Amino acid sequence: MKKIITISRQFGSGGRSIGKEVAEKLGYDYYDSELVTQVAEKTGLHPSYIEDAGEYAPGKSILSYAFSSGASPGSMNASDYLWSAQCSVILELAEKGNCVIVGRCADYILRDRDDCLNVFIHANKEYRAKHIVERYGVRDKSPEKRLEEKDSKRKVNYKYFTGRVWGNIENYHISLDSSALTPEKCVDIIVDLAK
Amino acid sequence: MKKIITISRQFGSGGRSIGKEVAEKLGYDYYDSELVTQVAEKTGLHPSYIEDAGEYAPGKSILSYAFSSGASPGSMNASDYLWSAQCSVILELAEKGNCVIVGRCADYILRDRDDCLNVFIHANKEYRAKHIVERYGVRDKSPEKRLEEKDSKRKVNYKYFTGRVWGNIENYHISLDSSALTPEKCVDIIVDLAK
Repeated sequence: MKKIITISRQFGSGGRSIGKEVAEKLGYDYYDSELVTQVAEKTGLHPSYIEDAGEYAPGKSILSYAFSSGASPGSMNASDYLWSAQCSVILELAEKGNCVIVGRCADYILRDRDDCLNVFIHANKEYRAKHIVERYGVRDKSPEKRLEEKDSKRKVNYKYFTGRVWGNIENYHISLDSSALTPEKCVDIIVDLAK
Repeated sequence: MKKIITISRQFGSGGRSIGKEVAEKLGYDYYDSELVTQVAEKTGLHPSYIEDAGEYAPGKSILSYAFSSGASPGSMNASDYLWSAQCSVILELAEKGNCVIVGRCADYILRDRDDCLNVFIHANKEYRAKHIVERYGVRDKSPEKRLEEKDSKRKVNYKYFTGRVWGNIENYHISLDSSALTPEKCVDIIVDLAK
């Protein structure tokens, strides 16, 4: 039985809803924005900074932090500080009990445990574009541009902290195309594998 | 219901055996080395050339062909000729009836059909190294080197003919780690999805 299910996902693939549904079906705890709050409490950083830092490339924050504080190159910057707090929160949650964790590099942070099932959810561009417009509304930028930017930022963030390539097939025990298989089927497969 | 299941796989991941088992359980035809023979019959090329060309980078054959025949740069070379025959064989097999096709870029060749399930099987290095030694015996080269060379050749071959990146998560509806999930579980998931 897998105690912990980590879900990484392309923006707009519905991975978050799939994770929530899996947690409900299995009676597992579910962590996503809750996690953000917990990290915030631990670090004293503002929740909106943490939310952004989980998704975006760390470059800018490091620079602005370094310039404003005059920190030397070797010293810990805000994003490294957040990363270290995020690691310890996720490691603690994993100790606490059965759970589903969406995003936040949990697959990497929990890589030394053998009771994790690491899942990646992806979908074709048309499906994802439709999904984000339904969920987050229309913006000035095209849905395609928004998908590209968000995933590219996730990629840079993941690479920066883990040294790995986000979305690389070998990082995950199972990868599912939610647009081809349907979200319901993805939920069934994951629930079945966890048991 | 999915009429056609294409299986792409890392060398040593057991993807071929998984494909065979899936075909048996579903009562589908299974194509792999049989396919090689069929292509051979169609092209008049030697079966051993075809077997190699499916796995290896096309560069060398093109050069040797060009030099020996004095072909002009725009003319069709042996590997393009083989590719074109391979495409038509696979398209015909797909028309013929329900089947499992392992390797040979079938996922790409059949990309316009909506009754295909495209699967990728991968596994961790230790599992694959053990598997190829059990199956193909010990060689001078280390198992790790053999894995790397074979997959790298598959990658070059796939890129050359399809323009896509082999093993890119987005090419497949489902990707499974046979070392983490067990081959039996992979078979069950694929059979269930095909139904």
